[in-house]
Amino acid sequence: MTQKLTFWYEFASTYSYLSAFRVADMARAAGVELIWRPFLLGPVFAAQGYSDSPFNTYPVKGAYMWRDMARICAERGLPFQRPPVFPQNTLLAARVAVAAQAEGQIEAVTRALYRAEFARGQNIMTPEEIAAALEADQLPLHYLERAGMPEVKATLKENTQAAMEIGVFGAPSFTVGDEVFWGDDRLEQALRFAAEDA
Amino acid sequence: MTQKLTFWYEFASTYSYLSAFRVADMARAAGVELIWRPFLLGPVFAAQGYSDSPFNTYPVKGAYMWRDMARICAERGLPFQRPPVFPQNTLLAARVAVAAQAEGQIEAVTRALYRAEFARGQNIMTPEEIAAALEADQLPLHYLERAGMPEVKATLKENTQAAMEIGVFGAPSFTVGDEVFWGDDRLEQALRFAAEDA
Repeated sequence: MTQKLTFWYEFASTYSYLSAFRVADMARAAGVELIWRPFLLGPVFAAQGYSDSPFNTYPVKGAYMWRDMARICAERGLPFQRPPVFPQNTLLAARVAVAAQAEGQIEAVTRALYRAEFARGQNIMTPEEIAAALEADQLPLHYLERAGMPEVKATLKENTQAAMEIGVFGAPSFTVGDEVFWGDDRLEQALRFAAEDA
Repeated sequence: MTQKLTFWYEFASTYSYLSAFRVADMARAAGVELIWRPFLLGPVFAAQGYSDSPFNTYPVKGAYMWRDMARICAERGLPFQRPPVFPQNTLLAARVAVAAQAEGQIEAVTRALYRAEFARGQNIMTPEEIAAALEADQLPLHYLERAGMPEVKATLKENTQAAMEIGVFGAPSFTVGDEVFWGDDRLEQALRFAAEDA
């Protein structure tokens, strides 16, 4: 039986950007099936009593995060630029990714959106900004129209609800069965866990 | 010139326990000089607006931390037991470690205290509990008496102040010059940074 790894991510999350550009190759190498599950951190943070990103609420932690990201991206050869707004309102971006999942394009669309946001430092909040991100990666724009479909909206809500139910409290997270692994730092361990469990 | 790595740790911190049992070997292997600097997280958290450990304030995060620690300790072959109280009041423990530093025994004393707290799951708050931890590792008890000396108290205060000034906001942290690396997860990167910088 092939073991599954679920990748829970939020488009506003800098550390999710790191995982989005390595998780697929690593899962393939480990022989683990990968499930992409975008969700919204807003409701998750609200349930914990946060009203804003902890990186904004705790400025020292926020300053550290940008430095930490810059160092990690430099080591991995990933471009990194801070977008004008942080955190972004990612409702539309997440819906676009969900819309692309039906056509097997969620990986490409996810990367296109993260690339715009954190590699080129652009906002990905409006339909125009998202269209530009898709075009830059030669991806079709119809995901943007489908983002408004009731089933797309419902799937994103389900993802967010499911994240909370399984105990996801930040992004990125990885789950293998009921086991939650938080942070890009835990991707290797989550894959070891999935491979042993298979 | 030998580059220096400063290890900032707090006796109440579970993740600091992880680092305390690997940082010395890893620094030696990297040819990096290691400086042990116990400090108190209480004033650091208070300055950020926290009144308790975030692991208590955010129960989902707290539950995750215990599971995460158990998995990591299992992978590393480190024993792990939760002490009756979390977080511990570590004022006396930190002073005992500082007192041991003058005799070059801070590593042994630090490990003895962490071993009692997180390997055997014992409290390390009272003089009696700390004496038991030292005795279990055949360490002299006079550090406990010296913990009350004005210069020991002053050094611990300086450590905590210096941690805040350099931008340390959690434990463990590692610094190389002005660069802060937060968490046991960043130890490898901090050592690469120190080695490159030498």
